[in-house]
Amino acid sequence: MRLPKYVEIIESGPRDGIQNEKTFIPTEMKIKLINALSETGIKRMEATSFVSPKHVPQMSDAHTVYTNIDKRKDIQYMALIPNKKGFELARNAGVTSVALVVGASQTFNMKNVRMSIEESLNQLGLVVEEAKSSNLFVRFHVSTAFSCPYEGMVDEIETLKIVKSLENFGVDEIVLCDTIGRAHPLQVYQLFSRTLDLTTKAKITAHFHDTYGFSKANSLAALQAGVSSFDTSIGGLGGCPFAPGAAGNDSTEDFVYMLHEMGIETGIDFDKLIDCVNLVKEMTERRLTGHIQQLMTS
Amino acid sequence: MRLPKYVEIIESGPRDGIQNEKTFIPTEMKIKLINALSETGIKRMEATSFVSPKHVPQMSDAHTVYTNIDKRKDIQYMALIPNKKGFELARNAGVTSVALVVGASQTFNMKNVRMSIEESLNQLGLVVEEAKSSNLFVRFHVSTAFSCPYEGMVDEIETLKIVKSLENFGVDEIVLCDTIGRAHPLQVYQLFSRTLDLTTKAKITAHFHDTYGFSKANSLAALQAGVSSFDTSIGGLGGCPFAPGAAGNDSTEDFVYMLHEMGIETGIDFDKLIDCVNLVKEMTERRLTGHIQQLMTS
Repeated sequence: MRLPKYVEIIESGPRDGIQNEKTFIPTEMKIKLINALSETGIKRMEATSFVSPKHVPQMSDAHTVYTNIDKRKDIQYMALIPNKKGFELARNAGVTSVALVVGASQTFNMKNVRMSIEESLNQLGLVVEEAKSSNLFVRFHVSTAFSCPYEGMVDEIETLKIVKSLENFGVDEIVLCDTIGRAHPLQVYQLFSRTLDLTTKAKITAHFHDTYGFSKANSLAALQAGVSSFDTSIGGLGGCPFAPGAAGNDSTEDFVYMLHEMGIETGIDFDKLIDCVNLVKEMTERRLTGHIQQLMTS
Repeated sequence: MRLPKYVEIIESGPRDGIQNEKTFIPTEMKIKLINALSETGIKRMEATSFVSPKHVPQMSDAHTVYTNIDKRKDIQYMALIPNKKGFELARNAGVTSVALVVGASQTFNMKNVRMSIEESLNQLGLVVEEAKSSNLFVRFHVSTAFSCPYEGMVDEIETLKIVKSLENFGVDEIVLCDTIGRAHPLQVYQLFSRTLDLTTKAKITAHFHDTYGFSKANSLAALQAGVSSFDTSIGGLGGCPFAPGAAGNDSTEDFVYMLHEMGIETGIDFDKLIDCVNLVKEMTERRLTGHIQQLMTS
């Protein structure tokens, strides 16, 4: 079984996780969590999202969060931006690493941003250009890269076409996201193998949800395909509005535990990660999907 | 990614699942569940356990359950027996396929049956001999084959020694059980690869729990090692008294769903499996760990 020796964890809890919480989480708690995560050994995280406060009130404090976290020089704090306006807001806050999104399913992209995939890519391509000319780091999420809540399985060719466009844009990182947690390991292995064959410049990252309990199997398949960077979310924070119930992002502590057990290094101090899980448990009364945090009595 | 075309599911819910339920499940409900499972396409199941009614009151109706289920000729209904006494009780009920157990960890085996592994194997070896001379099918579980709640990781050599003994006994099937759900995929891949190298006669089966959410990743690793038969439990019924909280057997419907998505056949009608999940949800008020049943609103 071919596995990497080191895996990079990109913590998505403060952004992709928290934005799914219905009750507003106080700004100071968000900052506290990000600062605690900075102490674990995690070197990259999505800190917040400069989106419309009307559509995502949970992220209305993006500027305050971003400007008030204790930024360590050895950690990359990224912010998601949906469009040119978000880009301006992020720049105004001093953000140096941005994350953009496009859906691989036409229906999903249309419902999400009221544009076709082509329109999204045209518009966001200009943002990428501007970001690159300002020397910003650009990551690009491909949501519904495997499966769509409206269209079902997404044809691999559609996702690979987007991957190729993003590679041509010169983005620094492409994240293939199983947004609804319905990908299966064989599909994951094949799509990442082909994506890695197709790209030479961009870092390729995997992003899984545990809706059907397949996130670890999918992660294992991605590792075997040659992927060594993963988006995960502390405590299993997150979810997807289209799959009510058990959905949640793949949990950072569970995945790190599995990696460490397999002898794969992450540079993360597991005990400090558990301190962050305790913070998350204080922040939300919702039942989270992470397994280790469910076993924790506190 | 090398995967089998067909996987055999051995349903363990009526035995390993139900025996972990604290509230006594009425005998007629157990029979109803087994009969419903018989309609799904599942060809093998553990129906009950002839254990001490004092220690496991949930299984005190073993004789009534076994003798009253509608036995289909194309389905193998197995019963677990802990010792010679259980064997007599099972034979008395007309059981033709028995399942025995030994722990791969000395401490676990000692706490479980107050005997060393060697004493257990000596005693159970005689039962196997008698069962084989009566042309019974004999499966043998190796519990804590990967990890022990008292000793931690179990040395692979210890498990392989037991596998070799069981192969020499001439058992029909050896089941390597991750009793506490703490195995990791690399360990699973290596132990099953070596077990398959070491054995020529016995069928080798995997049995996982989802305590840490690793059951699907471990199943994927076992599939890649060449295993094509798996113990699973409808709804994710089951658990382990040593790991309170999220623990549960790997869920039949979740695993079958994953296999079908990957194009692997099981001969199982998924809709009929969901009928059984609904029965399980009626039987227990406990929150079960299967993901699909958590997504089901009924």
